[in-house]
Amino acid sequence: MADLILALDLLDPMYAREVAESCAASLDAIKLGYPLILSAGLGVVKDLADLGLPLIADFKVADIPNTNGLIANQVFSAGFDAIICHGFTGRDAVEACVDAAHAYGGECFVVAEMSHPGALSFFSRGVAEQIATLAVECRADGIIAPATRPERIRALRSVVRSRKIYSPGIGTQGGDLRSVLPLVEGVIVGRTIYGAADPAKEAAVMAAIVNDERSS
Amino acid sequence: MADLILALDLLDPMYAREVAESCAASLDAIKLGYPLILSAGLGVVKDLADLGLPLIADFKVADIPNTNGLIANQVFSAGFDAIICHGFTGRDAVEACVDAAHAYGGECFVVAEMSHPGALSFFSRGVAEQIATLAVECRADGIIAPATRPERIRALRSVVRSRKIYSPGIGTQGGDLRSVLPLVEGVIVGRTIYGAADPAKEAAVMAAIVNDERSS
Repeated sequence: MADLILALDLLDPMYAREVAESCAASLDAIKLGYPLILSAGLGVVKDLADLGLPLIADFKVADIPNTNGLIANQVFSAGFDAIICHGFTGRDAVEACVDAAHAYGGECFVVAEMSHPGALSFFSRGVAEQIATLAVECRADGIIAPATRPERIRALRSVVRSRKIYSPGIGTQGGDLRSVLPLVEGVIVGRTIYGAADPAKEAAVMAAIVNDERSS
Repeated sequence: MADLILALDLLDPMYAREVAESCAASLDAIKLGYPLILSAGLGVVKDLADLGLPLIADFKVADIPNTNGLIANQVFSAGFDAIICHGFTGRDAVEACVDAAHAYGGECFVVAEMSHPGALSFFSRGVAEQIATLAVECRADGIIAPATRPERIRALRSVVRSRKIYSPGIGTQGGDLRSVLPLVEGVIVGRTIYGAADPAKEAAVMAAIVNDERSS
C-alpha cells in the first residue's frame, strides 16, 4: 500500500508547475527540495496547493535545535504538510522539527540512511538503526530509507515497526520500484519521471505498478 | 588572527539589514542561514553586498551529491562567497559542494562537529575527526567546530592543520569568546550580538576583544 511521491527537483518554477500538474492524477504526494525553493521562494507551495496533493518539504534539516525550529515553523506556515529532517544531529534537533510539525498538524520524517554511495561512510555500522530508534523515540511519523539498498529497508523496518518508511533512489539512482514497493509506505521518484520525454505518461506507468502491488 | 563573523539569524529582512548595517564596521563577515533566506529569498544576498563583507551561506547542505551541487551553484550564483555543508553525507556529497565553491572562486566549509547538546550522540567516538579528515581530503577550505567544546577544537586542529576553523556557539550557547579566539580563524556570534539591546555596541565590544587577541 505504498504511495507514489514525485520528487519535483526542478529549478524552473513554471516548468515545475507544468510537470506537477501533468502528473498529479498519478501521484499521492509531491516532495519539494531546496533547489526549487531557492529559485522560486516558499510561495511556490501556495501555487501548488490547488493540485490537492500533500506537499513534503525535503529540506533535510540539519541545524541546531533553535534554527531547526525556525525552519520547520516557516515550512508549515508556508503550507507544507510534512517535513524531512536529518537525525544524526541528535535528539534535541530532531524534537525541534517533530514538535513544530505536530503543532501544525503536520508530519515529520527523519532520514535514517541516504541513498547515494557516499552515505555508506557514516550511516553504516549501526548508525542508521540508532537514528531510526531516535526517530521513533522522538515521535517522528516515519523515516527515510534508501531504495538503492532494500536489505537496509528491511533492517530498519524492524526498528520502526508500524511507522512509515518513505524510500528515495528509485530509477536513476538504481533502486527497483517493484522490489521496494512491498517494503515501504511511499516510493519517491524524481528524475525517472520529470526527466522523461513524457513525464505524465511515465508517472502513469509507475502509478499502474504501484496499484498492481496494492491489489496483489 | 580570528575573524568576527555575525550569524544573522533573523527572520525579518528589513531588521536583518538594519542590524547588519549597524554592526558592519566591527565585522569581518556575515553568515546567513535558511531562516532568513526562506523569509527573504536568495535576493537578500545582493541587498547586503554593498556592506562590503564576505557573505557565508550556512545552509548545512546535507543532501545527495546531485542536489548538493544544485544548491551550491544557486548559492554562488546568488553572490555568496562561501558555503557551509555537512560532512556526514560522505565524500561524493562533500565534493559536490567543494567543486561548486571552487568553480566560483568561493570557499566551502564542512561541519565537523556541532555545538548543541544533541550533537554528542553521532559526532562522538572519532566521527568528527573522520569528517575533518574527509574535509581535508576533499580540498575543503576549512571546517566548523564547536566553541562550546574548546578541547574538541584542539583535537580537530591536529587533523586540519593550517586549514581554517570557524567556530559557532559563542555567548548564548555557552562558548567563551576569549578561550576560543586563540584556537580558530573565525568566531561566529549570533544571538549575543543581534539579540543585544544595542547590537552595534555589542559587536564593537566583541571586535575589541578580537583585536586585542590579534595584537597579543
